[in-house]
Amino acid sequence: MELETIMRPGLQGVIAAETRLSRPDGQRGVLVIAGYWLERIAPYATFEEMVYLLWHDRLPTAVELATFKAELAEKRALPPIAEDILRAAAAQKQPVMDALRMAAGTLNLVVDAADAQAAAQVAVAAFPTIVASYWRLLQGEALIAPRADLSHAANYLYMLTGDVPDADAVRALETYLNTVIDHGFNASTFTARVIASTQSDMIAAVVGAIGALKGPLHGGAPGPALDMVFEIGTPENAEPVIRAKLERGERLMGFGHRVYKVRDPRADVLNAAAERFFVGERAEFYALVRHVEQVALDLLEEYKPGRSLKTNVEFYTALVLHGIGLPTDLFSPTFAISRVGGWTAHALEHYASGRIIRPLAQYTGETERRWVPITERD
Amino acid sequence: MELETIMRPGLQGVIAAETRLSRPDGQRGVLVIAGYWLERIAPYATFEEMVYLLWHDRLPTAVELATFKAELAEKRALPPIAEDILRAAAAQKQPVMDALRMAAGTLNLVVDAADAQAAAQVAVAAFPTIVASYWRLLQGEALIAPRADLSHAANYLYMLTGDVPDADAVRALETYLNTVIDHGFNASTFTARVIASTQSDMIAAVVGAIGALKGPLHGGAPGPALDMVFEIGTPENAEPVIRAKLERGERLMGFGHRVYKVRDPRADVLNAAAERFFVGERAEFYALVRHVEQVALDLLEEYKPGRSLKTNVEFYTALVLHGIGLPTDLFSPTFAISRVGGWTAHALEHYASGRIIRPLAQYTGETERRWVPITERD
Repeated sequence: MELETIMRPGLQGVIAAETRLSRPDGQRGVLVIAGYWLERIAPYATFEEMVYLLWHDRLPTAVELATFKAELAEKRALPPIAEDILRAAAAQKQPVMDALRMAAGTLNLVVDAADAQAAAQVAVAAFPTIVASYWRLLQGEALIAPRADLSHAANYLYMLTGDVPDADAVRALETYLNTVIDHGFNASTFTARVIASTQSDMIAAVVGAIGALKGPLHGGAPGPALDMVFEIGTPENAEPVIRAKLERGERLMGFGHRVYKVRDPRADVLNAAAERFFVGERAEFYALVRHVEQVALDLLEEYKPGRSLKTNVEFYTALVLHGIGLPTDLFSPTFAISRVGGWTAHALEHYASGRIIRPLAQYTGETERRWVPITERD
Repeated sequence: MELETIMRPGLQGVIAAETRLSRPDGQRGVLVIAGYWLERIAPYATFEEMVYLLWHDRLPTAVELATFKAELAEKRALPPIAEDILRAAAAQKQPVMDALRMAAGTLNLVVDAADAQAAAQVAVAAFPTIVASYWRLLQGEALIAPRADLSHAANYLYMLTGDVPDADAVRALETYLNTVIDHGFNASTFTARVIASTQSDMIAAVVGAIGALKGPLHGGAPGPALDMVFEIGTPENAEPVIRAKLERGERLMGFGHRVYKVRDPRADVLNAAAERFFVGERAEFYALVRHVEQVALDLLEEYKPGRSLKTNVEFYTALVLHGIGLPTDLFSPTFAISRVGGWTAHALEHYASGRIIRPLAQYTGETERRWVPITERD
């Protein structure tokens, strides 16, 4: 049966497929991840539990989790050619996201990509190895081998620094990874689904998604959200600096998000994670950040009344990731380390539905051009 | 303004964006490429002219074409790491499409991918080098360096075989490449546009598209379309073999296409190309193919009356590519060598529009699950 043709540039408001993986509800300010309100699961689950939940639609038992963690841990090593790629990219100081895309593209050399479940495990397991290895190469430092006795999140920080991280840092990182693991059909997840919808393989879907995630229009780069805080430096600078920005018509990074009108539940969860993390000697920086935030919110209400601009997920992402010691250049790659859990879950879900995603285009060009041999063109 | 939410699984009948690049009109049996009916341009243009047309919305003058050909020709070499990747993949006998995806992923090492036009040239120029190099590695043969004095199509055949191809073979290949260069928002082209819609880079878009093109649901694999001809072998076998297949309820590869109800203009163009190519000693095989085709069409009408199943583009693709000596495993990669001209054109077009492609999902999962600590799960 032919459906009526409708015009929706950018596919705004068009439901492209069903999913049981996540539901961002912008009107109510709720994000459901596989049945759980975000704030009821992100601060408590390990990242491995979260990935298991997305793939299997339920949390694992203790025995299942132990098996799953071991399966992931043994898939952390890269194919040798991936390391060569990272070295070639590092020699040119390529962006981390590009290095991740290139190296992840070779993962079908260590797994039969037609085995979607195994390939999904390899992708999730190898992302931290790629990012951490590349980062160390960029710094001119020796690579650190993964440690199978560490959790996914702890091993990532260990491979970056060579130090086993403390439990607070691991918990903060896991809460972040859990918080951004899935969010409806954002552009990278949708890319993974379009590729999977042709019944192409898992690695192809993941590599396409990395490419989309790199785009600056994809959910905003979390990098610059804290730059304003660094620029302000001390509490008394907050008002004059922010007021000057708003007078100049500058957008304040870290505030406002188009999906959530009421509150962004991810921001709340990350804010709570930051509150738990920034104690003791870390408390002073946190106080500054909260002060800057409050001044920004007050001044936004003054300059843009009724717009209800809230602190967004990028702001708290930057706060948490900065807190655990990640440099700004690793914010997007760390986002990818989380989101690959969602991408793989969506690809697995779409393989089961089997429906190809194929929209239409509106042709706006000419239709009756006449071939002119090259000798007669001018 | 919020648009009404509509449900369109697979995006059937949804116009996702505008394009001036191509218009497949299934009702009328017409394919317009950048203003030209396919049959008015594909048999006449060089592949370089066709790519120029898509990128610039007009055919080049003689001077412009000479410049463009030279620019492409000088971009045929691969980054050294790409050759290493091809060797690693060949050692494992990886599929050609996967090798193409992996090697193409490193092309941002030889071009600033943020320069979309330059990156598009690199992608188009390097695809034949990747495919031909990988094919020779798979055969255990030495690599052949590209020759800048040969056209895009001629150089591809030269790099595969080491022999400069005759003009008939080049013309047949160019007609094929021109014929499949673009076709609305098929899944790979749409993938490239989704990635480009985040303002990610050209190489990322192309790599995602390769991944989608690999999928067996993407337009059908052109490989097996001639297998029936090989199986039949002699004209007198045609009817019994095909009748037996239809009695068993088998689908005949090479017949029927969902977009074109009347005729597939690409099939016509490739059929004419085959007619011109299969002369002299090649005529006998061509006569067999046409006989098999006619018997198949007659029997399809007998077994599936009123379905109007026509010979499709895969059938003639296989005929033309087999004619010029390409093995079946190179059919899809050769399709990619053509379609990258379309992918890059769509990415360039989408960069100009700047609108992110982001549909919705229908959430079908639970919404009120309660966190249970792992020690209490069963």
